[in-house]
Amino acid sequence: MEGIVVILHRPQDPRNIGAVVRAMLNTGFQRLRLVEPPPFDPDLIAAVAHRPDPVLTRLTIHSDLADATADIRYLVGTSDRPHLNLPWRNDVRQWAVELHRRATVAGPVALLFGPEDNGLSREELSRCHEIIGLPINPAYPTLNLAQAVLLILYELQQVTPPSPPPSPPAEPPADLADYDRLFTVLDELITATQFVKSGNGMALRRRLRAIINRAGLSQRDAAVLTALLRAAVRR
Amino acid sequence: MEGIVVILHRPQDPRNIGAVVRAMLNTGFQRLRLVEPPPFDPDLIAAVAHRPDPVLTRLTIHSDLADATADIRYLVGTSDRPHLNLPWRNDVRQWAVELHRRATVAGPVALLFGPEDNGLSREELSRCHEIIGLPINPAYPTLNLAQAVLLILYELQQVTPPSPPPSPPAEPPADLADYDRLFTVLDELITATQFVKSGNGMALRRRLRAIINRAGLSQRDAAVLTALLRAAVRR
Repeated sequence: MEGIVVILHRPQDPRNIGAVVRAMLNTGFQRLRLVEPPPFDPDLIAAVAHRPDPVLTRLTIHSDLADATADIRYLVGTSDRPHLNLPWRNDVRQWAVELHRRATVAGPVALLFGPEDNGLSREELSRCHEIIGLPINPAYPTLNLAQAVLLILYELQQVTPPSPPPSPPAEPPADLADYDRLFTVLDELITATQFVKSGNGMALRRRLRAIINRAGLSQRDAAVLTALLRAAVRR
Repeated sequence: MEGIVVILHRPQDPRNIGAVVRAMLNTGFQRLRLVEPPPFDPDLIAAVAHRPDPVLTRLTIHSDLADATADIRYLVGTSDRPHLNLPWRNDVRQWAVELHRRATVAGPVALLFGPEDNGLSREELSRCHEIIGLPINPAYPTLNLAQAVLLILYELQQVTPPSPPPSPPAEPPADLADYDRLFTVLDELITATQFVKSGNGMALRRRLRAIINRAGLSQRDAAVLTALLRAAVRR
């Protein structure tokens, strides 16, 4: 993710900068640039994003957008709607695959996000090679700044998703002998309770076996159930 | 999305309830239930989520989790990590397709989110048919409550994404006669400037034509460029 830079243009609320830092940490991005940010206390960032150092130690602040984008090879703007004669798309899932490849092959790309109130101006959007939106509810398309950053970075992260955390060791599954011991005790319980009034009870037995098979027991599950039913039969 | 209910169990900060309402509106969900929420002012919700009525008019508040889930056919818990002997998965994209089908075919399903500080307890997770996490940075897996809700609802929304908003009418593309007029004036400019010192300048002409072809001009683009270059030739 080294080839992908996030640029916030004139963010207004320092808490949103903190929430963007957190979204970047959640999704594995570290390169953030701020253009004309408001004065902010790094402690406020840390209150929203715990352990923000991977992003904060590399953060740079710029006096204008040209300075923030000077080394960028491809600039992507963000806007919730198309604009006349500007290239807008919102197929973000497909876009993410293409941008990921571009960042790897052609050098640094940047994602540009505008101020909270009005977003990027037409002039700022005109600097961009392309503009993306998110395919969300057209009746309610306005995302909070940090939520827009999160969804776009999440889509980029999902191009090569991280491996899942290790699971705790599962109990070994029951084998058919374990199931058969359980079914035998279950039969004894049915007989002992005189639950079946007529017929041989085969339909009931089949239903109970199907329920237990669907549950997918571990050896220990089967042992516990068998012991419980055996205790019930004894009473 | 009528078959999918969001349940917040003991949320602590009313601003997070507002941010969840906003995420639901962004992604097209309307059914929210709160279990033992803190006292909150609906105006605070509206300050975070403008026009929250589609969610707030249907919001219900419950004194315990059993009451909030009584009519639910399938309960999905959320946790950032696997727990011993509980069914956890984080292939959320595939899960979203399956849950969408289940909600359509089998009736109301619910997504259960725990309190901000510690998430769902093991007892609460044990009530769930399955537990999901998000495939994000394992070194920084803890999402803000509203961001977790947003990402999960976004994945569910993307199973049948909304159609993009209509684009403004594009200008008609240039035809080859438009391009040829432009290239003719460009040739005149090259001649007039005596830019080519040796050879016939064919390599330069081919490069300029390739640049212009890649840009994909509209009729108006071609007319403006042709007029501009013609003005330059005249000087």
